[in-house]
This record gives sequence, structure tokens and C-alpha cells, in this order.
Amino acid sequence: MLCCASSVCGTTAVKAQPATDGEPLQVREIGSFHVGGRLATISGLPEREITLLPGAPSMRLNPNGEFWVEQMYAQYVRLADPRARYPLLMWHGGGLTGVTWETTPDGRPGWQMFFLRAGHDVYVSDAMERGRSGWNRFPEIFAGEPIWRTMSEGWTLFRIGPADGWNIDPAQRRAFEGTRFPVPAYNPFVMQGVPRWTTTDRQVMAAYDALVQRVCPCVVMVHSQGGYFGFNAALNAPDKVKAVIAVEPYATPDASADAARVKDVPHLVVWGDFLEGNAFWTGGRSKVTVWQERIRAAGGVADTLDLPAEGIRGNSHMLMMDTNSDDVAARVQQWMEQRGLMR
Amino acid sequence: MLCCASSVCGTTAVKAQPATDGEPLQVREIGSFHVGGRLATISGLPEREITLLPGAPSMRLNPNGEFWVEQMYAQYVRLADPRARYPLLMWHGGGLTGVTWETTPDGRPGWQMFFLRAGHDVYVSDAMERGRSGWNRFPEIFAGEPIWRTMSEGWTLFRIGPADGWNIDPAQRRAFEGTRFPVPAYNPFVMQGVPRWTTTDRQVMAAYDALVQRVCPCVVMVHSQGGYFGFNAALNAPDKVKAVIAVEPYATPDASADAARVKDVPHLVVWGDFLEGNAFWTGGRSKVTVWQERIRAAGGVADTLDLPAEGIRGNSHMLMMDTNSDDVAARVQQWMEQRGLMR
Repeated sequence: MLCCASSVCGTTAVKAQPATDGEPLQVREIGSFHVGGRLATISGLPEREITLLPGAPSMRLNPNGEFWVEQMYAQYVRLADPRARYPLLMWHGGGLTGVTWETTPDGRPGWQMFFLRAGHDVYVSDAMERGRSGWNRFPEIFAGEPIWRTMSEGWTLFRIGPADGWNIDPAQRRAFEGTRFPVPAYNPFVMQGVPRWTTTDRQVMAAYDALVQRVCPCVVMVHSQGGYFGFNAALNAPDKVKAVIAVEPYATPDASADAARVKDVPHLVVWGDFLEGNAFWTGGRSKVTVWQERIRAAGGVADTLDLPAEGIRGNSHMLMMDTNSDDVAARVQQWMEQRGLMR
Repeated sequence: MLCCASSVCGTTAVKAQPATDGEPLQVREIGSFHVGGRLATISGLPEREITLLPGAPSMRLNPNGEFWVEQMYAQYVRLADPRARYPLLMWHGGGLTGVTWETTPDGRPGWQMFFLRAGHDVYVSDAMERGRSGWNRFPEIFAGEPIWRTMSEGWTLFRIGPADGWNIDPAQRRAFEGTRFPVPAYNPFVMQGVPRWTTTDRQVMAAYDALVQRVCPCVVMVHSQGGYFGFNAALNAPDKVKAVIAVEPYATPDASADAARVKDVPHLVVWGDFLEGNAFWTGGRSKVTVWQERIRAAGGVADTLDLPAEGIRGNSHMLMMDTNSDDVAARVQQWMEQRGLMR
């Protein structure tokens, strides 16, 4: 049994949240920028003939030249009067983009809106190589090939239903009993998917580190594959990252990492349901638990919000989209209050 | 000389605009969705061995299966109390994403913020295949290969400087004399670029049409390559598209298109500077002018805001990023006021 911050664990009734509030959000600015990356030169590729647009003259395309590569996109919403001490950076998981945090696939306000309403300036980014960050020529810049997630893989990897419950016909799909994922919105959810490489972690990390240097002090909230980058971002800049909230994280820092570096950076790890019997996720969770234990052994804080242990059953890996997403967010918000992250 | 809506042409002093206003924006909701696309099945590709994440077990990747493809992403900011009659849809140009409309590369609020402050609900989308829309396996789903724009091509295509003024060293670059593009921010600007295909216009158009059906009635604002899609979106749904604002558009509907279909859809075309002697752009402009003439011959409205003719010199193709971007936006806003598009 994992240890949970007792003040979160003990709370069965979470107070009505500002996300249900109908008052307008007081916004100072909505904006974006790109950060990180490097100049690269490509040479030696053959020319080819293309037509850029209907009616445009045919042209010889010389694909060689100079490019900016490996940059990352971040979009921010700054409030007129934030209640949070630090901006909240939201980093998505593998094969996805910052859209993870936006409107849920069944059309409810997502965690971006929840945490804005709770008083945080919010920065939603797309990992290097995904979404509005752009992507680079391969194999010249990115090694290897991209991969695309099949609809059936998402069904099981995100723990929405058993493998034999998958069917391309929505009416024939069988989800886990009691799932809180909005199952009729599974098709709109997979529309959020983007290709990914499995060879670019170093560049993704470098771009996140550049973002931290530009924007922080901050709180970093990560999901899934983002866990690896969030845990390491805190190690790389423990003076800048004031807390890490890891939602269903996968992968942890190397065994050689010095957990004492993050002893002043409180961590919260959030788990949904249906992990039992899933070797990918129980294995991943075990590694995260070891990393939490190492942080605590170094004198730090590494709490766990284990939803099933709290009596909240049915959450998928995409718990920020589940039908109780606001309730889970409220528990995370409460942890931030307790950890002194709000004014 | 092109004809301009005289009430815009005659205005030399444009009134102070709300974009400079320091008051918080009253926002009802920030959100997003994907629209359009289709199910596709890929089969017959070989399996390969991959490792998804550090520490994850190696796995056999079977790239075959079912995918949702050719969808499009749109993000909206809805105001508590919009002054505009219809939401404003902002469609970017080739090799770019919705970021075009966000913060300028030198860090000033962009046209998204300007038109929010002017009272429009704003929908910024990424064309099918770009940004947060995701992209699909090629050649199985997208025909042909993607192309990436070199930094030097952007320098000339976007009319920032002459070809012989390009240099990879920012200190050695020579822009057009009097350019209003924020030249020191050219590197941050090219970071906004993404790959594109030249074979996917049909799918891009289908996704825009699906967006129009979902969101409109609306006003569609397009840039560059987006002109092709905006002009055609109005033809495809003249009851839904209440106006088209084409900023430096390239490409027009086919010669067989019936301009009478859009006689009740006012059009405004906006041109910057430095077109003379540039065959790509003068040729493109000629085609747009013919389309405008056909709309007018059918009894419709097809105005032109020719900035140099107004005495405003120095605008690049990326005029929503130029140092006078708010002034240009104010003239567009004034046209919308005059055309009855505000409450």
C-alpha cells in the first residue's frame, strides 16, 4: 500500500470547485512562444519538382538548407489576479499533445480550465516533435521512424477496456465495468493522437529544460510519458521547479540520479484504477514508487493520491478526461493548497 | 488600381484600439475539439521491435490496424459578452499553424488577442496535417512526401528581404528597406514552421468544411494558402460563412466556380508591401483580383485593403506579426464594423 498525504486521503467530501463557477475568467493575456532547439544544416539531398498551391507555377524544390529544429511550443493563459504562487506547466504524455489538458473529448471543460478557475496561470506545451512544436526531417534530424498508435492499442494502454473488449464498431465495444472514461467519446479522443518517435528523449528533455529556464519558478504537472521529463526537470532545476504533480507517470530518473537534489521539491503522484493484472502499468508504477521512496529517504516529500484506495473506482489512464475529472482535479488542487503553493 | 471600400480607404487616423487596453478580458471558456476525418485501416506492413520509454520492456510494434485520420484541431476562446455577431475563425497559411495568430515572434500580443479585445469569440485552428491536428502515415494515407521550408526560402517568400539579403548570421541579414517585420525575431518566427504536404488540399478543405458546419455562422479570416480554403469554404456554405477576410491570400476557386453563390458574403482582401517585381506574389494577386471582380460582377462585395495605397509602407507577407500589426488589425476591424458584423 502506498503512502498518501493523509490530509488528502482523509478527505471524502471535496468542496464545490470553482470550475463549476459561471463567472467569467479574468484573463490578462493569452499567448504563446517557441523555446529551445538549434540551427541545423541539411545537404546532399536531391531536388524534386513540386507545385505548392493550386495555380502556382511548378517549382524545383531544393530540400537542402538551414533549418531551426527541435524547438518546443508553449501556450499560456495569464490571469489578471492569480491565486497560485507559481504558474502551472502542464506536460502531456506519449503520442499526444497539450490538447490532453483542454476540453474533454465529450465536451466538458478540462483541467486547463479547472486550474485556471482555481487561480493558476497555466502553460500548456506540446513536447518537442509533437503538435505545434513541429517535427523534423528523418532520419537526417530525428533518428529512426515515427510510430502511430492504433485505436485498439489506445483502448488497452490507456486502460479503458480489456483487449477483447475492443471493436471498431462503437456499439460493440466493451469497456471495463465501472469505467469513468467517457466511452462514447473514444473516437474523438483518438483524434487527439499524433505520431511520435522513440529516439528523441534527449531533445524533448532539452526543450523542457529550456522552458523551465524561461518561465519558472513554477509547478510542473505531467502525464504518462511526461513523468520522465517532469521528474528529470526537477532534478535539473530544483531551484526553479517548486513542485511536481505526476499523473499516472511512466519512467523515472536513472538509478544514478541524486534524489537529495529534489528534497525541497514536493512531489505528488496520482493513480487511477484497473492497474492490477496489467504488467506494463504495475511495472511502471513499481519504478515510480521506488523513486518516491528515494525522495522520501533523502528527506523530501513524495505523496501519492491513489484514487481506488480513496474509494474512487473506475478511473482510466486519461483521468483528466474521465467523468469525475473535476473531482480528481479538486483533490490535486487541495494538495497544492496544503503544500503552500497558493497565496 | 484595385478598388477599396471607400470608408476604409479614406480613413487616415484609426481610432485607439481596445488591444492596447489593460483591462482583463472577460472569458467564458477556453477550449478545443477535433473535427472531421475518417476511419482508415492499414495492413500489410512489417512488425518491428521498439522500446516506448526508458525502462519499458522492448515490444514488437505492429504498425497495422485502425486509425482515425485527416481530422482537424480547433481551439476557441469564448467571451462572456461578445460584441461581434459571429465567431471569428482564423485559418493560417502553408507550412504554419494557428500560432500565426498568437503572440508575435517578438513577444507582442497578436491578432488573436486583438480580435478578442475587439469583442470577437475567436477560433484558431491548425489545418488538417499540421500542428495539433496530427498527421498521417505516408504514403499509405498522405500521398507523396512532406516538405520543410528552409530559413532562406521563408526570408524571400514572406517578403522580409531580398534573396541576396539572406544570411544565417542574424547580424549579416539585410531586410527590405523600411520593412515592418520584426527582423531580429526572424529565428523565433521560423520556429513556428511545420512540415506540409502538397497533395492534401482535398482533405484540408473537407476538414475546414466540417468546421464550418460545426461552428458557423461565422466570419472566416484566412492567410496565404488559407485563402484557397477560405474562398472555397464560403462557396461551399454561403449560408454559414458571413464574411471572408483574406490576408495576403494565395490561390482562388476554380474557373468554373459560381461567384453568384457568394454575392451575399462580403469579402475583404488585405495586401502588404514589396509585391512589385515578385512574380510569385504579383501572379497570385492577379488571380485573386479576378476572383474579386467576378464576385462584384455577380452583385457581391469584394473590397481590398491595399496598405501601400493607403500610405502604409513596409508590411511583409506576415503582416499580423509586423510592428504595425495592431494598426492593420484596426483597419480590418473597422471594415467589419462597417459591414454590419458587430452588434
